[in-house]
Parts: sequence; C-alpha cells; structure tokens
Amino acid sequence: MAKGILFILSGPSGVGKGTVCTALRGKISDLVYSVSATTRSPRLGEEDGVNYFFKTRDQFLNMMQNDQLLEHAEYVGNYYGTPRDFVEKTLLSGNDIILEIEVQGALQVKEKFPEGVFIFLLPPSLDELKDRIRGRGTENQATIDHRMSVAVDEINLMEHYDYAVVNDQIDSACKRIESIIVAEHCKVKR
Amino acid sequence: MAKGILFILSGPSGVGKGTVCTALRGKISDLVYSVSATTRSPRLGEEDGVNYFFKTRDQFLNMMQNDQLLEHAEYVGNYYGTPRDFVEKTLLSGNDIILEIEVQGALQVKEKFPEGVFIFLLPPSLDELKDRIRGRGTENQATIDHRMSVAVDEINLMEHYDYAVVNDQIDSACKRIESIIVAEHCKVKR
Repeated sequence: MAKGILFILSGPSGVGKGTVCTALRGKISDLVYSVSATTRSPRLGEEDGVNYFFKTRDQFLNMMQNDQLLEHAEYVGNYYGTPRDFVEKTLLSGNDIILEIEVQGALQVKEKFPEGVFIFLLPPSLDELKDRIRGRGTENQATIDHRMSVAVDEINLMEHYDYAVVNDQIDSACKRIESIIVAEHCKVKR
Repeated sequence: MAKGILFILSGPSGVGKGTVCTALRGKISDLVYSVSATTRSPRLGEEDGVNYFFKTRDQFLNMMQNDQLLEHAEYVGNYYGTPRDFVEKTLLSGNDIILEIEVQGALQVKEKFPEGVFIFLLPPSLDELKDRIRGRGTENQATIDHRMSVAVDEINLMEHYDYAVVNDQIDSACKRIESIIVAEHCKVKR
C-alpha cells in the first residue's frame, strides 16, 4: 500500500483555517485529523485520543526531550504539541493526515518533517482579514492592530510553503486543496 | 497577469495520450494546444498555424540552428518540432499550454524548458498496453513485440517526469490531470 501524505494547513489567525479544515474533512472521509497532545485538563465531553491526547506536564516534557513532537508551543500556561508517533502510524496505514496549525508551528514541523506538504491559506486581501478579525467583536483596536501586524509578518513567511491557496470562498478553497491532494499523490518522486 | 504554465503530456505509444489530450481540451476551454512545425505538405483541410506551422526544409533547419525549437524529430523523411516562440507567447498571454509528445521528445523539451510540468501517462498494466497496441489490428507479432519493448524502456524513463497518471479510464485520468493543473497554479514558487 502507498504511504499517506501529511498535509499542513496553515496561515494567519483569522484566515479561516479551522473552517476550511472541517469542510475538507467532511468532503474527504479518509483524511485523518492530526490529534494534538496537551497538558490542559479535558473539558466536558472531550475524549482522550479523539480531541486531544491528554498528558501530564512530566509526560509532555518527556515527549519533548525524546523528539516525539513535530512541534510544540506553550499557551496560557499549558503545552500543546503534535505527536510524531500518531502522524507516522497514520501515514504507514496508507491514510493522509491533515494538520491545522498556526505559522510558527508549521515552520517547526517543516524542520522535523520536510516531506510534509505545506499549504498556506491566504485572505483575499488584508482589508478582508481585518474585517474577519474585527468581526469576532471581542477585540479592541490595539489588539486588532497587533494581530494585523502579526498576520503581515506571517504572510511574509509564505515562501517556506509549497502551496498558497486564497480563502475567497470556503468551497473553492477546499476544491483547490483537494486538487493539491490528488496532484501530490501523482508525484513521481513518491 | 500570471504567466501560463507549459504542461507536457507524454508516455509510451498506445497509452492514449491523444485521446486524453483531446478530452482535456474539451473540458478546459482556455488550455491551448501546442502547434507543431513540420516540413511535410499540408493535407486537405489542414491550416497553417492551426494544425501545423508548415515550413520548408530550409526554414526548419534554420529554426533548429537558431534554437527556436524546444524539440524536434525526423519521421518518414519529414521534420517535426515544437516552436519555442509559440509556447512562450502563449504563456506570456496568461494561458496554459499542453504539449502532447512521445517520450524522447519530452526529454528534449525538459532540457530546453525545465520549468515545464512533465506528466507521464501510464497504462493500467503492460498486458493492457499490449491489448491496446494489438487492438489497432495493423501490426504483426514482431512489430507488437518491438513496440512493447520500446514501451518498457520508456516507462523506465518516468523518473525524469514530475507526475505519473494511470490512464485506467479517460475521465479519471483527465480529472487527475485537471487537479495537477490547479495545484501547479497554487505553487508558491510560481
């Protein structure tokens, strides 16, 4: 059986990574979602191995030290990371896997797993991105300005990616990513 | 405007390059067909610049000497070749172009135009290819054996291509190639 491919879907905050990722998984039933490890406590209804792999702080630090994470980050006092083992087992079983992640995390994954296919999701324009960030209605102007400046810095990191897909419409962005998945499976080097 | 991309559709004789190429052009209206230059005489109904660019032997040799052909070959006393000028003008106008060509010609194009996207069309199996070659009903056993041995040698050259597409069904081969076209346009390096 042919090995699966790891697709990394990334891009600036507010671009719609989560929505596109969910839509893609709805369309491609055998596309496996990369489950993260975390040290935060499970919330009601969250299942270990489905929503997250729940780890103690010691277990997580141990995974870091043994190079068992493709990337990791700390966020409001908790660790989050991508277990290498889950990714590799899924690929060996012949399934593709999709990892939805912010830009810094994607660049960490690229160092540890360069054979992944890196897709950058772009907003149709910076104005549109600002509208989307503002549209959440929870941020003040300083926060919006800061997030826009981070987004511009992140867009400048696009050169490290294989593909760029504009998220103008969820459906057309999904179709382009589906095409990328089909094309990658046709590559002779695989 | 973004530049177009040159797609080279190649593969062993009998694999169905012509049929797939015609079907693709039917589905993608702005995919331009690469018109060849030839020294053979026009047949009834053939138009210069549409079916071929008709050239005298001197004109053709002149094009060869001035590196104006991406590839060329001699076949039953006439020259055939791919004019570089037509390809480059089409790409600059923003249109993609498809060049349907046998394997040796494709490898010549790769030397002169490495930025092309090289797609190898594969038969579902060697038995299937033999059936297709035999199915034309015009060849004796020695010819069939010879063509099969050439086909096997050509399949061994697949490593020089970017993509391999199995021509199991015309429609699914076309869909894979359409995906390759979409994906190539999403490449960050373009």
